[in-house]
Amino acid sequence: MRFSTRVGSMQASPVRKLVPFATAAKKQGVKVYHLNIGQPDIKTPEGFMKAVKAFDEKVLAYADSVGSEELVQAMIDYYKGYDMTFEKGEILITNGGSEALLFALMTLCSAGENVVIPEPFYTNYNGFATSVDVSIRPITTKAENGFHLPSKEEVLKSIDDKTRAIILSNPGNPTGAVYTVEEMHMLAEVAIEKDLWIVSDEVYREFTYDGLKYTSFGNIKEVEDRVIIVDSVSKRYSACGARIGSLASKNKEFIAQVLKLCQGRLCVPTLEMVGAAELYKTPKSYLEEVNKEYCKRRDTLYDALMEIPGVICKKPTGAFYMQVKLPVENAEDFVIYMLNEFRHNGATTMATPAENFYATPGLGRDEVRLAYILNCDDLKAAAECMKLGLEAYKAAGNK
Amino acid sequence: MRFSTRVGSMQASPVRKLVPFATAAKKQGVKVYHLNIGQPDIKTPEGFMKAVKAFDEKVLAYADSVGSEELVQAMIDYYKGYDMTFEKGEILITNGGSEALLFALMTLCSAGENVVIPEPFYTNYNGFATSVDVSIRPITTKAENGFHLPSKEEVLKSIDDKTRAIILSNPGNPTGAVYTVEEMHMLAEVAIEKDLWIVSDEVYREFTYDGLKYTSFGNIKEVEDRVIIVDSVSKRYSACGARIGSLASKNKEFIAQVLKLCQGRLCVPTLEMVGAAELYKTPKSYLEEVNKEYCKRRDTLYDALMEIPGVICKKPTGAFYMQVKLPVENAEDFVIYMLNEFRHNGATTMATPAENFYATPGLGRDEVRLAYILNCDDLKAAAECMKLGLEAYKAAGNK
Repeated sequence: MRFSTRVGSMQASPVRKLVPFATAAKKQGVKVYHLNIGQPDIKTPEGFMKAVKAFDEKVLAYADSVGSEELVQAMIDYYKGYDMTFEKGEILITNGGSEALLFALMTLCSAGENVVIPEPFYTNYNGFATSVDVSIRPITTKAENGFHLPSKEEVLKSIDDKTRAIILSNPGNPTGAVYTVEEMHMLAEVAIEKDLWIVSDEVYREFTYDGLKYTSFGNIKEVEDRVIIVDSVSKRYSACGARIGSLASKNKEFIAQVLKLCQGRLCVPTLEMVGAAELYKTPKSYLEEVNKEYCKRRDTLYDALMEIPGVICKKPTGAFYMQVKLPVENAEDFVIYMLNEFRHNGATTMATPAENFYATPGLGRDEVRLAYILNCDDLKAAAECMKLGLEAYKAAGNK
Repeated sequence: MRFSTRVGSMQASPVRKLVPFATAAKKQGVKVYHLNIGQPDIKTPEGFMKAVKAFDEKVLAYADSVGSEELVQAMIDYYKGYDMTFEKGEILITNGGSEALLFALMTLCSAGENVVIPEPFYTNYNGFATSVDVSIRPITTKAENGFHLPSKEEVLKSIDDKTRAIILSNPGNPTGAVYTVEEMHMLAEVAIEKDLWIVSDEVYREFTYDGLKYTSFGNIKEVEDRVIIVDSVSKRYSACGARIGSLASKNKEFIAQVLKLCQGRLCVPTLEMVGAAELYKTPKSYLEEVNKEYCKRRDTLYDALMEIPGVICKKPTGAFYMQVKLPVENAEDFVIYMLNEFRHNGATTMATPAENFYATPGLGRDEVRLAYILNCDDLKAAAECMKLGLEAYKAAGNK
């Protein structure tokens, strides 16, 4: 008995496939610094559980397929703070940013069509696309220049007559890059010239550093009829387990189409929306505090990495990831070595090998993604571990 | 700018598209008896909210992609009560039965392949299939014989070389039919002969009446390597808003494939799993009470319907729906008439037109689905309304 070609050709999660090695290390009593996952340790605002605990309906009933009125209104108000004016009927609540991305792909692309995405990119983009017979055409970006976009001419080369959309994460996972206003206007021009949609994954909107002013695709009037904003409470409010995301678009026809998918799965969880509505009312000071904390962590990890000979990484300006080129030939082999063999003070560091963040074969083999989601002391210790690990790895004859 | 053919060709939810007519009636002060939706009024067991309220982690973190250990274990124990032995690694928790069905379709069928389903069927089967380029080949069943299956020869006629699976809801939505052990063995034979998967949607497992002994496809040893059981807490525990469903299969290769989709969307909500684990520990007496209540409602509605001249319906033996043939040519027209024009004692009744529950064009135009999810007094009043409404509809010159 066989399976579908689409799911058959999906790769298993590269973030999760090395978990057994980490589990084995922990069973030996080794402390593992997890720089491999995007699960923040920041406290979820208390408003979430407070609202959930106050829920007292006797029947836990279906919600509306578009999402609860209260949550949609809270998001409308939230977007106003970023000069984006969405109305009721222009926002759909989804099961995390994940469902938002999958539904957008299903709605915009027929089987056999494609989307262009700057690489390296969030690996699940690949999974979502493959699972619905959509392919990815990469726009290659490089560690050496902080993963910023190439010229318009280069971008245009990635587009063919089956391209339906540009998808991008801004600030970027895994790169930590924040696109400049010029880059965004260049992409907007391309979208207009080539009649493409723009799916803008902005779940790290508040995570930009160094005083950068954040610009959303929702702020570029010329493309408002072709922009789809993906959001999520997961990272913003450290509520990954709530699985509340959203799609927002001024294009009402898009909303009408994707609503059919939302109606098919009936609704997202009632209680999670009750909690999430409170999250979106969290005072801005919470987000500012979180931003400060991540900025400090970025500096700590970056400074420590710069002490390691041969590491290439431009200081990232957003999200909470760094995509780092290591002085090794095969980063996955090095990550497994760290988990299986290397210990310093009874600890080791786990990174995510980054080859799967690329669509172009062969790229990223010497790169890892690091998430700075630990406190500064642990980040320092983790980087120290990596430094010594790299020395030991080389000394053992590895390239 | 265009949309994908798959989503473009999906129909809007037939259950939800008449809602505006009901809303308009209510604005006029009319009481609407909603027999059109499957939202039970039964109290959700208190264990759900109790467990949720006791949750006190500071960070609402991602759960495991396969589901929480506690919920999976609770389900393993639950299945034991039905002589089904599943182990850890054979159950995946999903965002409702909806995601379970969608993921099963994506995993089993490549674009352009098909599944066979007895019609009339749950309309969202059609939506899920269309949204991933899978088509449905119907096995037609009829009101006159209680929507039981035709002969094996007839069933075989529905299968072609692109058929990958048989999907069925048992007990049936919208038919209320419970397949006999003979029917199930016939389908099992067909699945073996034609090398097909069986996706068995058993979310109404506890809703069988008249002392019928329920048989699951999970009890038929010969097909255990090709059976996928879909479940949900929605109807079982009146927890539709929790959106907790599951896939269970002894076929480990299937689980490994579909797990890739589960990993792509990371996890289902952490808190909902905390609550759902409690639901699956609810004493059986709760389910027995609920069964008694629905049985009483079925009898009430059925007896009242039998008072209406020209109505054709064999007494259903499961779920909480009846698929009813009305003495009209166009049931949708009649449903709209009821909402727009007919009132009795300031009330009217809303049914779901059933044409969209069929894949064969033209079938079901004179049928409606009724959900007996109201108390017995309301059901009687709703049926009385329909009876008088039908008389008035005919008297007004409608056919």
